[in-house]
Amino acid sequence: MIKILDCTLRDGGYYTNWDFSKELVSTYLESMNMLPVDYLEIGYRNNPMKDYLGEYFYCPSYLLEQVKEASDKKLVIILDEKNVLPVHVDNLLKPCVGIIDMVRIALDPQQFGRALKLAERIKAMGFEVGFNTMYMSRWREFPAFLEDLRFVDQVADYFYMVDSFGGVYPQDVIETINLIREKTNIKLGFHGHNNLELGLINTLTAIEHGVEIVDATITGMGRGAGNLKTELLLTAMNAKDGLEVDFNALSKTVDGFSQLQQSYGWGTNLPYMVSGANSLPQKNVMEWVTQRFYSFNSIIRALNNQKQKVKDNYKLPVFKPSKKYDNVVIIGGGANAVNHAQGLREFIAGLGNVCIIHASSKNANTYEDLEIDQVFCLVGNEGHRLEKVFHSFKNFSGSCVLPPYPREMGTYIPEAVVENSFELERIEFSNRLNDTHTALALQAALELGDENVFIAGYDGYIQASISQKEKSLTDENEFLFSSFAQHTGKPLVSLTPTNYKSVAVKSVYSLLA
Amino acid sequence: MIKILDCTLRDGGYYTNWDFSKELVSTYLESMNMLPVDYLEIGYRNNPMKDYLGEYFYCPSYLLEQVKEASDKKLVIILDEKNVLPVHVDNLLKPCVGIIDMVRIALDPQQFGRALKLAERIKAMGFEVGFNTMYMSRWREFPAFLEDLRFVDQVADYFYMVDSFGGVYPQDVIETINLIREKTNIKLGFHGHNNLELGLINTLTAIEHGVEIVDATITGMGRGAGNLKTELLLTAMNAKDGLEVDFNALSKTVDGFSQLQQSYGWGTNLPYMVSGANSLPQKNVMEWVTQRFYSFNSIIRALNNQKQKVKDNYKLPVFKPSKKYDNVVIIGGGANAVNHAQGLREFIAGLGNVCIIHASSKNANTYEDLEIDQVFCLVGNEGHRLEKVFHSFKNFSGSCVLPPYPREMGTYIPEAVVENSFELERIEFSNRLNDTHTALALQAALELGDENVFIAGYDGYIQASISQKEKSLTDENEFLFSSFAQHTGKPLVSLTPTNYKSVAVKSVYSLLA
Repeated sequence: MIKILDCTLRDGGYYTNWDFSKELVSTYLESMNMLPVDYLEIGYRNNPMKDYLGEYFYCPSYLLEQVKEASDKKLVIILDEKNVLPVHVDNLLKPCVGIIDMVRIALDPQQFGRALKLAERIKAMGFEVGFNTMYMSRWREFPAFLEDLRFVDQVADYFYMVDSFGGVYPQDVIETINLIREKTNIKLGFHGHNNLELGLINTLTAIEHGVEIVDATITGMGRGAGNLKTELLLTAMNAKDGLEVDFNALSKTVDGFSQLQQSYGWGTNLPYMVSGANSLPQKNVMEWVTQRFYSFNSIIRALNNQKQKVKDNYKLPVFKPSKKYDNVVIIGGGANAVNHAQGLREFIAGLGNVCIIHASSKNANTYEDLEIDQVFCLVGNEGHRLEKVFHSFKNFSGSCVLPPYPREMGTYIPEAVVENSFELERIEFSNRLNDTHTALALQAALELGDENVFIAGYDGYIQASISQKEKSLTDENEFLFSSFAQHTGKPLVSLTPTNYKSVAVKSVYSLLA
Repeated sequence: MIKILDCTLRDGGYYTNWDFSKELVSTYLESMNMLPVDYLEIGYRNNPMKDYLGEYFYCPSYLLEQVKEASDKKLVIILDEKNVLPVHVDNLLKPCVGIIDMVRIALDPQQFGRALKLAERIKAMGFEVGFNTMYMSRWREFPAFLEDLRFVDQVADYFYMVDSFGGVYPQDVIETINLIREKTNIKLGFHGHNNLELGLINTLTAIEHGVEIVDATITGMGRGAGNLKTELLLTAMNAKDGLEVDFNALSKTVDGFSQLQQSYGWGTNLPYMVSGANSLPQKNVMEWVTQRFYSFNSIIRALNNQKQKVKDNYKLPVFKPSKKYDNVVIIGGGANAVNHAQGLREFIAGLGNVCIIHASSKNANTYEDLEIDQVFCLVGNEGHRLEKVFHSFKNFSGSCVLPPYPREMGTYIPEAVVENSFELERIEFSNRLNDTHTALALQAALELGDENVFIAGYDGYIQASISQKEKSLTDENEFLFSSFAQHTGKPLVSLTPTNYKSVAVKSVYSLLA
């Protein structure tokens, strides 16, 4: 009888930073009690890390006990082999004794030797042990790993093939099973990703060819494109094999995670398809897709560059302005750069020695006709926006600045402005977020400005509820503003209303005669 | 060489009622010009129908010409066999001559004889002809159809297998191909649905087994769970077979349809999985999922009833109240039923001979302690909400009314109120939307009321932009209010602010002493 392991909380944590509401978890555990699922993997156990990571990344003992209380299922936690040494095992797993049934190890097959030692310690504590071995599509490249496979059944109960890139096809599953079967008789498992929507068929193929345990998550929640959906596997097995499924229980927990999915948006899309089909790591893609302002276009270009091992398509001349300005005004993409346009235009026109830096081209139209030097920041897909704003570029006389070479997202520059485009040599005031609009604008201000740097149209976000993407953008800008202030010794001055905390505010109207 | 037919506009029209913005279509056509797609199916040609159906449902000649102008691809339109007789063909297809390359016929295999005659007329006009034959998983049940297959290559160029329910597996595809190959040598096609996320693997399997043309749509847009995604097919064929794909062009049109998808929400989900896995028609499921207020729970229950051929789980006693009231106040789920609670409670308490009907239980808490007869409308998943509101039902003394038997969505009644639950005999003032909260509440008011029917907390939707679901709910209520007014000869009176146009308004405060 095939066993099903649901790892929604563990793998879904990549989206929520391993925090979940009590209500969602309680509905999940109740539903699972009614469903033909054998194991629940609830999270990681980990040594302390420096960034904030949530409840299910550490699974402290009170949490383990609460889950044990609420669940009738066998419980699983996972260790990440690269973060755990055999000496850590006792401390990490002592609270799990009597509560957790299986400990899994996520591992790179190139560290298989180390993982065997880790497994030995875990096995000795009385746990079932599962190996979650990554990169199944590349295993033939690691002969030492294949050689050592014969030792695995001494220390482990299940050996999982993980389709890390989400790019394997049913035929590959069969071939990998045959490859492993030459070396060991351990029970096999399969963890399928869904980049190419092959999670179900790969898993059913694995089952048909003798795999004994398979992973799935509710709504497919999981890193990147996510996993085989538990509800899809159960529905298919109900219809095909008569597996009994309480669809009311199932739909309750699917409802809960579907709502969460509307904020986080896991699931496959064109960038994940391309990374899966070409076996490119999806960690970067996930950051690009979820956190940032890149269009599919930029991401696809970056993935194509990776695939062709091109670092970047262009090397541009470095931005070395011949002239310095007493005043620099950075225009952001916020509504206040338009709402207060008349005041801002009066102010800028009155300054004399001034230039404008457009962090985003979004509001550039409003300032187009001012006879003042203007600089445009080009990141990701911004070149396309510039084209939309300036159409034929007939009266365009600005310069464009791009991030330092090489540009991870590739480089798109409208043909008409290639002659006036430059790359920054470096971002000197911050060592992260170096390819954001705001980082570019601030660095350009350092290159161009002599005295005052103003910002306008950086509104921050004002709604009570904002999307993850907006939240992340606001946090990034806040970080850059405060780094810039530290670097220059004085805060930026916003001329328009703003919710950013690390900038000073001077109403543009207070500065007009 | 395999041919690809993209039918995004035709099949996507099921979501947008066959209207698309000019910008979306123009980006789509431009992108397609850059991509290895052979045919574009742009819509239907149809005789006039009585409901409103959009531009791409009729494809008038100016539209055909515009698309021809913008596209380098072979163009296709489709006829629905059940709506078209051979005598219509000339009129419907004359404007297509010289513009459209292929005419497809969507058909039920049980009407195969009729379709052959239709095809003959179409072929005679010089078009390529494709048969899109539905229900491939049931073809063995139709021997006359299988027998007549030998005539198909005289009148058609392509014969498509359509996975109508979205429930076939790769092995079924192979078996169906073999079944057809016994009868005819016509070129085969495959149109796959994605309920079980098997669109890609079924299509690749079909290609591997000699199918020569396959369908796909951008983002999978299409009726119900939708289709194989064009971007997924192209990405897979690019990585596997070296098919050249301009990913920038592809991502441009994917971006456009992805944005539309956020409003309409096509794609698979638990109800579509269940209907696919069990070969249940997805037309109803699509209505339930997109238009209405049913939870996955109610839909799954309805699908289970269909699967087990149960009409409904319960027959309840008919609602025949022994008492009539001079005044009935219907409380809706809008915020104004809470915002104006004090005024409403004063007004209701002062009326004396009165009862309350809760169209939704959402605001029931606010009126729970009033010592007045109260009736609760139970539709779909409302029983679960009632449980949440009243917990143990300790002090619950109300009655519940349900739609007339049989209830399409099945019946869920919390155990504690089964004794006090009744079904309406009929909805007498409307012949549609009979299982909505508002229809129930109004019919209950007819049964209970003698004189005045008030409503409160029917706010309508006030934001500038509302979701399709909200819009649809508002339209439904408006229809019911106006049907009710026609039936009774006087409009309903709203006591709280409302945006509904077919009700009269009297401020609750104007009616207080």
